[in-house]
Amino acid sequence: MTASIDPTLRMRVNGGAGRGGHVGMKHGAGGTAMRRLIAETLTRGFVDAPLPTPGSIGLAAFDDGAALQIAPDQWLVLTTDSHVVQPIEFPGGDIGRLAIAGTVNDLAMMGATEPLGLTCGVIIEEGFSLETLERVQRSMQAACAEAGVSVVTGDTKVMRKGELDGLVVNTAGVALTRRVVRDAGLAPGDLLIVTGSIGDHGMALMAVRNGFEIEGDLTSDVAPINTLVRAALQVVPGAIVAMKDPTRGGVAGSLHEMATKGGVGILVREQSVPVKPAVRALAEMLGIEPLHVANEGKAVIGVRGGMAVAERVLAALREHPLGRDAAIVGEALAEHVGRVIVDTGLGRRLVSEPEGEPLPRIC
Amino acid sequence: MTASIDPTLRMRVNGGAGRGGHVGMKHGAGGTAMRRLIAETLTRGFVDAPLPTPGSIGLAAFDDGAALQIAPDQWLVLTTDSHVVQPIEFPGGDIGRLAIAGTVNDLAMMGATEPLGLTCGVIIEEGFSLETLERVQRSMQAACAEAGVSVVTGDTKVMRKGELDGLVVNTAGVALTRRVVRDAGLAPGDLLIVTGSIGDHGMALMAVRNGFEIEGDLTSDVAPINTLVRAALQVVPGAIVAMKDPTRGGVAGSLHEMATKGGVGILVREQSVPVKPAVRALAEMLGIEPLHVANEGKAVIGVRGGMAVAERVLAALREHPLGRDAAIVGEALAEHVGRVIVDTGLGRRLVSEPEGEPLPRIC
Repeated sequence: MTASIDPTLRMRVNGGAGRGGHVGMKHGAGGTAMRRLIAETLTRGFVDAPLPTPGSIGLAAFDDGAALQIAPDQWLVLTTDSHVVQPIEFPGGDIGRLAIAGTVNDLAMMGATEPLGLTCGVIIEEGFSLETLERVQRSMQAACAEAGVSVVTGDTKVMRKGELDGLVVNTAGVALTRRVVRDAGLAPGDLLIVTGSIGDHGMALMAVRNGFEIEGDLTSDVAPINTLVRAALQVVPGAIVAMKDPTRGGVAGSLHEMATKGGVGILVREQSVPVKPAVRALAEMLGIEPLHVANEGKAVIGVRGGMAVAERVLAALREHPLGRDAAIVGEALAEHVGRVIVDTGLGRRLVSEPEGEPLPRIC
Repeated sequence: MTASIDPTLRMRVNGGAGRGGHVGMKHGAGGTAMRRLIAETLTRGFVDAPLPTPGSIGLAAFDDGAALQIAPDQWLVLTTDSHVVQPIEFPGGDIGRLAIAGTVNDLAMMGATEPLGLTCGVIIEEGFSLETLERVQRSMQAACAEAGVSVVTGDTKVMRKGELDGLVVNTAGVALTRRVVRDAGLAPGDLLIVTGSIGDHGMALMAVRNGFEIEGDLTSDVAPINTLVRAALQVVPGAIVAMKDPTRGGVAGSLHEMATKGGVGILVREQSVPVKPAVRALAEMLGIEPLHVANEGKAVIGVRGGMAVAERVLAALREHPLGRDAAIVGEALAEHVGRVIVDTGLGRRLVSEPEGEPLPRIC
């Protein structure tokens, strides 16, 4: 059965590890290693498979979800995420809130801010506490209420002790929209907004997992942001040309994807990027770039039409409770295609694309 | 946080096990224990949540999926399943084929036989063989081709050794249909068809897991059956009034749900039920009722309009390669509401609703 496999595949996926390849932690970490595994193994064949309509967006786009055109002015957006976060309950949220927010936000990133319904598949370790399960379930309900959606169908599995650690939650979501926003939509001159402070989720998890005690606010930002995104989309129809939620791989990962797919360079003004003091302190202590750290309630938004339009979008974001710290952080360039450049105020440096999130089971 | 919980809940879910309840293997086994966990914990709140339109079918129906009405004559059907089958590759299929078939079949059971697109979320154990992963992925592709659908979006996570055993695959699917078929649609006089031999999947897994050597054909029936169901639906428009796929809990589990929801009794003629000799042999050896054993490529279909119509549906099913062994096995009764009665030829007996599948990680 190996005859049909590209003989260099396993070596490439494992970075030259040789024959009999295997999956490593970096392959699930949201960076370049994961993208290689997905491109070279998991999506082979599917990227070329026919879609319901020629204009549909499927796996080949590697966007936040798929957009299937079902009528001339109607798209069905579909997305999924599995959640394996550890610990299951963390400062600012839990696996249930994370699952709902993750799926609602992926739909919103495609321009579909009114989710029709969500699925929820849970896999539970034998012996798991029913009290914790009930708390997680109530947390999902609360997040659904914030997003204006409900779980409409689900599935339940149980695995034995030793076969699964705790609880895994998969969610998928579906929404209809008249206009799809791609992560590939940037053109030179577009301005870039982040909708709030960055790195909160990853750093909160890092702190709780390692027992660090940091002064100040170090809680996950996990939240469904579809209502925030809807407010931004309504300001000037068509002005938002690209969106991505900077989860695993952080803002730097999202910007690299947006730069590569859009065929632009990206310039970020470091002093404009909102970072909470506690996040900055821990990141400096650990030598981690906040731009590489996961967020679960933020969006990177590309705006066309110049500074006046971007400032109107910014004002709309800041009026929303989840967008108070939104900021214009940079712009798309015609040069440096596929690269992300940070202007520190003292000079410029390239920001690398992360190979993966530094922390496993971040989401 | 426990104040708002029904104080008897934990005891009821655990069958009286007392305080500090926990999830047991039976809660994932597709029977009454799982239905209790779902009703009392996992779906609380969601069953009452508003749906996009008043006629939509959500969690409260406990059907194979949700059906969201998006236009006067158009329904969006949505479903999900997580797959944890052990071993990952088994006689007749693997976890990839199982995932695609499971989701395509759940859509088909709601009358939506032309899936628009599927999602696929994989969670992989660190160190998992890339060669096996590639085989599973090709198996998914092949099953998608049989069903006429593609995976259009996905998600990848990796968990450490000791945190996950092998590979978990979640799939969700979406389809549009003009007519929804419910599992609740039976009325007295409706005839019941099974689309082929029963118990093949569960018994094949049981044999391979326990190292039993049985003569004859003992392979899983796992297959997407949407094209088979489509053929049946086209025979006499409106004649098929109820469908369910008898996975965990087997045909008996499906019939119990159909009887309870439809407010009917169900009579099954045992000698009409197709069971392969090897399945019957192993079931007798183990003292297991074939009606309780999981299937992954079969449907239970309720037909209205009398025997002539049922025989036309049967003929259409038998023309399809996946329906050659289809049979009319019984009928819905006005009496014995919620019960399933088997006529053995020598007398009648009640078939219990299984508390759960005898084998964990069957799908």
